[in-house]
Amino acid sequence: MIKVGIIGSTGYTGAELVRLLSRHPHAEIVGLTSRTYSGEPYWRVYPHLKGYTDLQCEELDLPRLVDRADVIFTALPHGHSVEVAREVLSRGKKLIDLGADFRFSAREVYESWYRVPHTAPELLERAVYGLSEINRDAIRGADLVANPGCYPTASVLGLAPLLAKGLIDTREIVIDAKSGVSGAGRGFSQKTHFSETNENFQAYGVAGHRHTPEIEEQLGRLAGREITVSFTPHLVPMVRGILATIYTRPTVLPEAEELYALYMDFYREESFVRLLPPGVLPQTKAVAGTNHCDLALVPDPRTGRIVILAAIDNLVKGASGQAVQNMNLIFDLDETTGLVFPGLYP
Amino acid sequence: MIKVGIIGSTGYTGAELVRLLSRHPHAEIVGLTSRTYSGEPYWRVYPHLKGYTDLQCEELDLPRLVDRADVIFTALPHGHSVEVAREVLSRGKKLIDLGADFRFSAREVYESWYRVPHTAPELLERAVYGLSEINRDAIRGADLVANPGCYPTASVLGLAPLLAKGLIDTREIVIDAKSGVSGAGRGFSQKTHFSETNENFQAYGVAGHRHTPEIEEQLGRLAGREITVSFTPHLVPMVRGILATIYTRPTVLPEAEELYALYMDFYREESFVRLLPPGVLPQTKAVAGTNHCDLALVPDPRTGRIVILAAIDNLVKGASGQAVQNMNLIFDLDETTGLVFPGLYP
Amino acid sequence: MIKVGIIGSTGYTGAELVRLLSRHPHAEIVGLTSRTYSGEPYWRVYPHLKGYTDLQCEELDLPRLVDRADVIFTALPHGHSVEVAREVLSRGKKLIDLGADFRFSAREVYESWYRVPHTAPELLERAVYGLSEINRDAIRGADLVANPGCYPTASVLGLAPLLAKGLIDTREIVIDAKSGVSGAGRGFSQKTHFSETNENFQAYGVAGHRHTPEIEEQLGRLAGREITVSFTPHLVPMVRGILATIYTRPTVLPEAEELYALYMDFYREESFVRLLPPGVLPQTKAVAGTNHCDLALVPDPRTGRIVILAAIDNLVKGASGQAVQNMNLIFDLDETTGLVFPGLYP
Amino acid sequence: MIKVGIIGSTGYTGAELVRLLSRHPHAEIVGLTSRTYSGEPYWRVYPHLKGYTDLQCEELDLPRLVDRADVIFTALPHGHSVEVAREVLSRGKKLIDLGADFRFSAREVYESWYRVPHTAPELLERAVYGLSEINRDAIRGADLVANPGCYPTASVLGLAPLLAKGLIDTREIVIDAKSGVSGAGRGFSQKTHFSETNENFQAYGVAGHRHTPEIEEQLGRLAGREITVSFTPHLVPMVRGILATIYTRPTVLPEAEELYALYMDFYREESFVRLLPPGVLPQTKAVAGTNHCDLALVPDPRTGRIVILAAIDNLVKGASGQAVQNMNLIFDLDETTGLVFPGLYP
Repeated sequence: MIKVGIIGSTGYTGAELVRLLSRHPHAEIVGLTSRTYSGEPYWRVYPHLKGYTDLQCEELDLPRLVDRADVIFTALPHGHSVEVAREVLSRGKKLIDLGADFRFSAREVYESWYRVPHTAPELLERAVYGLSEINRDAIRGADLVANPGCYPTASVLGLAPLLAKGLIDTREIVIDAKSGVSGAGRGFSQKTHFSETNENFQAYGVAGHRHTPEIEEQLGRLAGREITVSFTPHLVPMVRGILATIYTRPTVLPEAEELYALYMDFYREESFVRLLPPGVLPQTKAVAGTNHCDLALVPDPRTGRIVILAAIDNLVKGASGQAVQNMNLIFDLDETTGLVFPGLYP
Repeated sequence: MIKVGIIGSTGYTGAELVRLLSRHPHAEIVGLTSRTYSGEPYWRVYPHLKGYTDLQCEELDLPRLVDRADVIFTALPHGHSVEVAREVLSRGKKLIDLGADFRFSAREVYESWYRVPHTAPELLERAVYGLSEINRDAIRGADLVANPGCYPTASVLGLAPLLAKGLIDTREIVIDAKSGVSGAGRGFSQKTHFSETNENFQAYGVAGHRHTPEIEEQLGRLAGREITVSFTPHLVPMVRGILATIYTRPTVLPEAEELYALYMDFYREESFVRLLPPGVLPQTKAVAGTNHCDLALVPDPRTGRIVILAAIDNLVKGASGQAVQNMNLIFDLDETTGLVFPGLYP
Repeated sequence: MIKVGIIGSTGYTGAELVRLLSRHPHAEIVGLTSRTYSGEPYWRVYPHLKGYTDLQCEELDLPRLVDRADVIFTALPHGHSVEVAREVLSRGKKLIDLGADFRFSAREVYESWYRVPHTAPELLERAVYGLSEINRDAIRGADLVANPGCYPTASVLGLAPLLAKGLIDTREIVIDAKSGVSGAGRGFSQKTHFSETNENFQAYGVAGHRHTPEIEEQLGRLAGREITVSFTPHLVPMVRGILATIYTRPTVLPEAEELYALYMDFYREESFVRLLPPGVLPQTKAVAGTNHCDLALVPDPRTGRIVILAAIDNLVKGASGQAVQNMNLIFDLDETTGLVFPGLYP
Repeated sequence: MIKVGIIGSTGYTGAELVRLLSRHPHAEIVGLTSRTYSGEPYWRVYPHLKGYTDLQCEELDLPRLVDRADVIFTALPHGHSVEVAREVLSRGKKLIDLGADFRFSAREVYESWYRVPHTAPELLERAVYGLSEINRDAIRGADLVANPGCYPTASVLGLAPLLAKGLIDTREIVIDAKSGVSGAGRGFSQKTHFSETNENFQAYGVAGHRHTPEIEEQLGRLAGREITVSFTPHLVPMVRGILATIYTRPTVLPEAEELYALYMDFYREESFVRLLPPGVLPQTKAVAGTNHCDLALVPDPRTGRIVILAAIDNLVKGASGQAVQNMNLIFDLDETTGLVFPGLYP
């Protein structure tokens, strides 16, 4: 059994880790830390887990936790995982960070978008970006995985085949993304306040959201050149799910079948990417609760563009599910272990 | 492997059966019938199941389906399961009916509330009411199980311990129940129309809902006397979940601890009933997607009443999950097989 | 023009007062106070009011505000209106308090349910309970009006005709009420957090909600005797609206027509109470944004009970609309001034 | 008083016309036709209007209705307004059509996107496109007004100032729009089915929605050249509201202040367009129930693009409110008559 410790376990991504690991046949949670709820049974914080974990939330005692665990998941505000990483790596254990602290290769990018100094830039090189479908081999050997952001996961999976083949004009990428409110976490704010958010729709962080440079770095790697994108996130009055609507301009517009074949080929071996046949569009509800990414492609001869649609559950493939997928890779398990189940529909 | 056929598989309870059985280690679906979608891959009707079933919807060919199957689930409008039952039983197979056709011991009650004649009243005696926690032993030997309605499941589980002990005034039971919209099925109507139902709350079927006599019959059995209740269902602008708020008047008002102990004792062996400690109230979200029933008890010295709160997922414990639980009982499997997993929260 | 000051204007009831008064032909807002937003244009706090008020939020300077105003509305946490009341009354102006500080005739009841001492018990006698339909004459001459709570408004309007006629067993009243989330105000909490509340339904404050004694006092006045009720509030995943489902046992069960005639007669002159004909049930959406209370009555011969259903908008008839109605009464305007418009449906 | 007849009055845009006209000081509804509900009191179809109209739904008797009315509103499926128009115009009355039958100057465009022949192409020239802010003068003298579609209203108001000044690359316009479910009307379908739509987000009509050519024609007029756009509509799990997120590439990127000044100048005289200051973004909730269009502009130096955000209520400014605005223009009333009130928030 892989022994797992979760630091910052009472946010939504923490709760999803507990949900997923409680049914994982080869993992066992050995510690759940929480500043706010320390001493409380975990199920009192998350009532759906009554009967599924007997653990209590505990204060973080890092060395003790690391000693007990084979792998640590951190689900912390940015800036807080760096010290954990040092400790975990120095004791020869693995770290999967669900935050942003290790997602960038250049500290400058991190520092300019997140507005804090990076206190362990030497680890940036050691970290592997954990988009499992793209970086599988590197993840297998990693001891420090930067789990991707939710918007980048959907955006990069949607664009990867076209970029890898060099088929689109890299100056003409627009990503219009929409997320359920759980993406804003369990913290209270006006944006997560029911009466303000229900029956409401709005954009936020226009031309300034922190997932923008993460998307650009990953797209740039695939394309082999620097890429700048317009990225606009929106808040949908629902709990879970991201839909990214991506506008691209190919150098030559392919036929629908050709385009479909390109993606089919690129994702042939993937368990979690589901390419929908022409005429079927993704819905967030179809992936709710699961590690799937549903994709559709619409070439538009009128405009010469290709519209790509990608749907994920922001808390699963966009966070905790992908983190477990990465854990499976690190520990040489079948990548899908504990993650193969359909979602909740309706 | 238990071979399963589902008749009327493209309603919501059908889809939940497919979701649950697709991860059941000892069951295999051999046929999915649908009048509307015959010939279509099942996942085209329910996109969350892409990759989880390769079956196509088929026209009902009853003898052929029964021959292939060990057990048939019927998820049909009332009146339509009777002929299926004859055929299934005559061929020595099992039937679990998710509709109302076999839920009553007296045909007169069925006929007066459902306003159709019952064409096989001789089967009513053979049928076992499939509330697993209450009728477990009878279900084990049954070949015809009447799966309970969603409201009766929550109501009877909430009241059973008090009634079985004869502790309440049986003339003073009020059940005020609230359900998500999926309880109305996949059929189109004003009550299931998004713009009419979202941001709206209303009662329906006041003093006349068909689950009333079902609740009364089951409560009457537990109490050993005829019982009449006030039952009012309401429509909640959410997809899944039932909360029943039940008002009772005990002959002597017990202390909270005593009451809690009574329920704890009654449900001690139950895997799916979760009794919440004093001070914690059930939420439908905590049981969403699961076979659990969460219960709480609030004795009120001011009024001399006990308020009981019971939460279930109407499509799982209130329908398809309980149906699978009954299948497990019939086939001598561990009752919880394929049903032990936490729900989706948030 | 009636000059209006609103203290605590940036909560939801404050915003509704601004919305309603901005279209009131005989009222003018002269001051909006807010601790949190002082100095900001009001429309920055409530963007729907851009163009409808140019006022800025101001720090409370009580004497100055009272001098400018003819009437003060207080929308404050309980305990905070008492000092305001003294000041307003000493300067010969009127106060309409949307909080609980003046709703009870006995300070002991207030103190035991709200757990603070009442610092001006002498004012309790002077205050008039502002349920306009019931206390119209007293409100006309009042200078201190206690605007009713949202649940009491729906509950008392639903029960008044039966109680006033002495037709029901006063020991057998159960009020099962359901409210949209805006009833919890603009403050942040887990109960108002979108991801926790959406797709969720739960009871709260079972057997202990503070509106219970308010309901009991008002029902008791109508009946001429002490009344104890079971009152259970629930949280509905929607923004606005209350539906109260009220169970009563008449001494003799009337026919539907007779019952309907009784209510029709009682509410004959009322502009805001809409009695629905037999067979039609209230929906919260039909009263959203309005000062209406929609009522229906269902006598149930099977159980000998009458089920009463009452729907209001908790922020309008349950708070700010009724407060304006009371202002109209105090200032001898037509009671409906500024309040006659249909709601938003769908 | 302007005498108004509404044909097809029981859809959502019809109900909004009744809501708005019931408080209009210079209009009176003289007839409400409905195929489905003929003979029923209108309030039975729309319970929020109980007390606001005593009219019954009537079968369409066109000559009789036109005789009684000064202006007819048609809220019919496309293809059905053409015959009405002939009759209305031949009797010297006015027609405001909320459908698509007169929105295009070229019958070929209409016929190719709507796939029906246009049976009165001679009227296309006579019809005025009723986007009040852009075509005010022409509307004043019109007897046949084609009321704009909801998406075109938001899109064209968002883009008009930039296009009129020729400041953007007209080949680089992407309009990513999101609508509440009421935009799909009162008809039943899977897309309007609560359980399928709630907690779900999806695109529809990608690269093929019928509002595309309407947007393109109007943008083209403003720009003085043919324009092709990428337009993608999405379905938001809420009832009302459209947000359009519009991506443009200016030939020279202006400063934020300059851009803001351009729009301020263009919309200086407009009562219903509210330009939000830099840093504030539109929300659909802030315009719910109103005739406003809220606009924001975000120049993005990183990408060289300008992102424009436009929010309207699809049923008001996107349909019935704009229709009343056009009626006011035709009849030489103040354009804002009956339309000046804030919306419902929260």
